Amino acid sequence: MADPRESGTELQPRWDEKGLVTAVVTDRKSGMPLMVAHMNAEALDRTMAPGEAWFWSRSRGRLWKKGETSGNVLTVVALRIDCDQDAIWIEADPAGPACHTGARTCFYRRIEDRALVRDA
Amino acid sequence: MADPRESGTELQPRWDEKGLVTAVVTDRKSGMPLMVAHMNAEALDRTMAPGEAWFWSRSRGRLWKKGETSGNVLTVVALRIDCDQDAIWIEADPAGPACHTGARTCFYRRIEDRALVRDA
Repeated sequence: MADPRESGTELQPRWDEKGLVTAVVTDRKSGMPLMVAHMNAEALDRTMAPGEAWFWSRSRGRLWKKGETSGNVLTVVALRIDCDQDAIWIEADPAGPACHTGARTCFYRRIEDRALVRDA
Repeated sequence: MADPRESGTELQPRWDEKGLVTAVVTDRKSGMPLMVAHMNAEALDRTMAPGEAWFWSRSRGRLWKKGETSGNVLTVVALRIDCDQDAIWIEADPAGPACHTGARTCFYRRIEDRALVRDA
């Protein structure tokens, strides 16, 4: 009764209706989540090359290598996929701040009492 | 020129066309990503209560408290939101295996040479 997608060794990403899966990037050193983005088949293919992390930009509608303009690329250390194969976990060594705002991580604000507090 | 959604202290989640944001759960102790799920406004509201993590189940089309049947609830330690407010990072203490398969994390398989290898 086991679902081969969950128990198997075959890579079978469960693309959503836009052909995307969710990707979570963590920093190898700190373990901290750096960003959440999306990948289409081509972005996943390039990221598995191996080398640096590629994504699909939903806002720009194009393939995008993280750091292609800023230089803050993400060197992939390990890739994992979740049980139902609709999310990818990318462990990476970031070359610089992961967030386009210049913050180390995109998650620079805590939610407290339903408002946001910037991390020190 | 700063975008108040990125620089401000007001919680303004950027819901997608289905009214959802992405949620990434990490284990406070190990720092490891445990699961990726989705939240609608009600799930986020309940999770901010504070207490345990709630999600919106896309497959079942209903609000869902993680662990409501298994007992493997996620006690929220900290909540963070990303720069454009379409992803939430939940730091949590899991009461048991986070994955419905019984694995500690949903990310129990590495991608290597375009195939999946189960973590020991």
